[in-house]
Amino acid sequence: MKKTDVAIIGGGPAGITAAKTARRNYPDKDILVIRKEEQVPIPCGIPYIFGTVDSPQDNIIPDAALEDDGIGLMIDKVEKIEKDKKVLKVQSGNEVAYEKLVVTTGSEPLEPPIPGGDKENVFFIKKSVPYLQDVLDAVDEAEDLVIIGGGFIGIELGDECRKRNQTNVKIIERLPHCLMLGGFDPELCKRAEEEVSKNGVEVLNGNSVEEILGEDEVDGVRLENGEKIDADAVIMAIGSKPNVELARDAGLKLGDNGAVYVDNHMKTSADDIFACGDCAEKRSFFTGEPDQIMLASIATMEARVAGSNLFSLERENPGQVGIYSTKIGDTAFAVAGLSEKVAKEEGYNIVTGSFSAPNRHPGKMPGMKETKVKLTFNKDTGVLMGGQVVGGFCSGEFINVIGSCIQSGMTVDEIATLQMGTHPALTASPVAYQLPNAAEDAIGKMK
Amino acid sequence: MKKTDVAIIGGGPAGITAAKTARRNYPDKDILVIRKEEQVPIPCGIPYIFGTVDSPQDNIIPDAALEDDGIGLMIDKVEKIEKDKKVLKVQSGNEVAYEKLVVTTGSEPLEPPIPGGDKENVFFIKKSVPYLQDVLDAVDEAEDLVIIGGGFIGIELGDECRKRNQTNVKIIERLPHCLMLGGFDPELCKRAEEEVSKNGVEVLNGNSVEEILGEDEVDGVRLENGEKIDADAVIMAIGSKPNVELARDAGLKLGDNGAVYVDNHMKTSADDIFACGDCAEKRSFFTGEPDQIMLASIATMEARVAGSNLFSLERENPGQVGIYSTKIGDTAFAVAGLSEKVAKEEGYNIVTGSFSAPNRHPGKMPGMKETKVKLTFNKDTGVLMGGQVVGGFCSGEFINVIGSCIQSGMTVDEIATLQMGTHPALTASPVAYQLPNAAEDAIGKMK
Repeated sequence: MKKTDVAIIGGGPAGITAAKTARRNYPDKDILVIRKEEQVPIPCGIPYIFGTVDSPQDNIIPDAALEDDGIGLMIDKVEKIEKDKKVLKVQSGNEVAYEKLVVTTGSEPLEPPIPGGDKENVFFIKKSVPYLQDVLDAVDEAEDLVIIGGGFIGIELGDECRKRNQTNVKIIERLPHCLMLGGFDPELCKRAEEEVSKNGVEVLNGNSVEEILGEDEVDGVRLENGEKIDADAVIMAIGSKPNVELARDAGLKLGDNGAVYVDNHMKTSADDIFACGDCAEKRSFFTGEPDQIMLASIATMEARVAGSNLFSLERENPGQVGIYSTKIGDTAFAVAGLSEKVAKEEGYNIVTGSFSAPNRHPGKMPGMKETKVKLTFNKDTGVLMGGQVVGGFCSGEFINVIGSCIQSGMTVDEIATLQMGTHPALTASPVAYQLPNAAEDAIGKMK
Repeated sequence: MKKTDVAIIGGGPAGITAAKTARRNYPDKDILVIRKEEQVPIPCGIPYIFGTVDSPQDNIIPDAALEDDGIGLMIDKVEKIEKDKKVLKVQSGNEVAYEKLVVTTGSEPLEPPIPGGDKENVFFIKKSVPYLQDVLDAVDEAEDLVIIGGGFIGIELGDECRKRNQTNVKIIERLPHCLMLGGFDPELCKRAEEEVSKNGVEVLNGNSVEEILGEDEVDGVRLENGEKIDADAVIMAIGSKPNVELARDAGLKLGDNGAVYVDNHMKTSADDIFACGDCAEKRSFFTGEPDQIMLASIATMEARVAGSNLFSLERENPGQVGIYSTKIGDTAFAVAGLSEKVAKEEGYNIVTGSFSAPNRHPGKMPGMKETKVKLTFNKDTGVLMGGQVVGGFCSGEFINVIGSCIQSGMTVDEIATLQMGTHPALTASPVAYQLPNAAEDAIGKMK
């Protein structure tokens, strides 16, 4: 039997970050990551292997991240957690005894029960390098590609596949607009659809796929409205569900939404077992209610909490804010916290403020792109609840400014006088910097 | 006599922002900006008219910023503030009666008493469009250009002039390194010197200019060490001093460092007169002590305080954090708050943490650039006191994430679990995102 102080099941962003955090906080402990895959794809990079990055082999999380920190790696599949004995049984027949365990078993794609979903050339976005190579090969052969689901993954995938080889790409989205579940307000969803359409991707909103057509191999899809669309490959990107079999079989409590229950220290219901990442239950930073947003950036935050708490409870998870960004065509889209729409649905009394300005000054500086910020505040308290940014590529960091303001509970007046660094080649001008101006716009509506 | 509710002297970033803030907060008031220049250059854009932007005419603050908000503009020079009568006397002979006054008279270049400083082709960085056109014409004629002063302006100017026409450019800096007064630690100052040198600019550190040589026209400079350097144009960029003559003559109190005294509401010693921007006294966010950092981004923050307080004290200035960024060659440099060196000099017990990672993931994504973050914490309290970023162009927004963490008083543990949005095309990976990792590095040193 192998023995380790800390065992971590899973080698994705949560597993690696939990291991690295444990190493920093507990330098004397043995730490072992056990994962079943030879290679782990960078999850958020998957859409990019279909275009910009070009191959699954160029989108691998390097094992050096573990080796450099003296963290052990075992390629094997954990088949059972014996939580009373504190032992793991792995597929090869070995056993691993642990003192502390972190479960990071992640998520897997939702596979909706659409008739014909088992035909050849119908794919999901699985975090498996050989599987993704098969999808890529099919996309390379395809003349007509249908993507079911217009969330972040679906829209990024459509943009990249179109770039790759000018295949006809259609995205079919059930809701009135793409990205609506991503926290964007409708005006920004429309803007994203425009950008992906410019590249030749066709977006069909408000449509469900009722059936996948063809003999053995897919040759089309039939929509709810009866329309038939040609397809020689279909990729479904309609979301994921937590991987909880191992935890459930071990007798760990599950939360109401089916993920592994954790407290705010990321401890499960069992002694000495923690969980983090997509498999672990999430609660909203704002409401404290369960809200299972599965993002690698949330997973790593949770892993930084879990990894530090293993032998002594040091940190608490404040709940997920939900901060994403993406790039479609030459425009970046980013969101943090609650959109206007979601905040209203949650029953908050809210006020919004917007401001748009070039992200360079003067406008003749290279790389200039108009960049718009929208902020959502709680009208009763003035506290910032959400933000959206659309424009230049630095929107990916800009949304993190907004995210940090949300996490520290800043008010609309504090943001109106927030100090910023500005530079002609790097940001908007100090007069037109979007954050304080958007806050002032909201203040104007509160009077 | 003309009458206005609000008069603002000066049309730079502070004046415009004070006017626009007043407009938003007091929609019914008449607001009048009085400035002496026909056109106002964007101050931080000035170095770029020598290269990237190419002309002073493409670096003008548009008057539309005022017109669109219904703010009046008078081109005239205020010669006297009669504070007891609440009247301004202007050069054309008119008088303007005000209810509230904001003084934003800005700063002007320091002109050190170097012998020969009055020769032809010796220039300063003045905020005047016709003057800057003369400097540009002289640079175009010059074969050998000497820039005295290796601060932000000097180093940006050197980089741009070299780009323009491959003139021989030498920067002469009195201190051991360029940018040292900008809050960078020596390792980043060296990196900036390397970048500007790659472009062919020669940097001479630890050297003072003792004399400017030539007959009527400059033909060289003599250094402290006796060395003579050829020059057919010299630009001095060694800093600025507040423009306070008008305020002083009106009997407004000055602060210890010579700027116009203001309280934390940006009120001067006189009733109904506020001041903000480079002419107004500044105090450190950290120590509360006078610290005259003159940046347009600080000026606009102060203007957002002043403009809202005119008829009712709404906001307070928490003191300047000092957040800057710049781009040299293809590398961005940014700093917020106190560097390690300055924090030690101020007597703080500090600990630093650093982390470097590619700003894309996987590394094959276009635009990838290694980006390093260094954070400085108060070791006694864990509170963040400063940060530095060097790498990709989004460092300009990245430093604003750090700036907002400083302003909300975040601790090292809060930053270690700060939630971030990450994206392959826009940021570092969620595992390697620099902020929490730099915080973890600092925590490791605190144990």
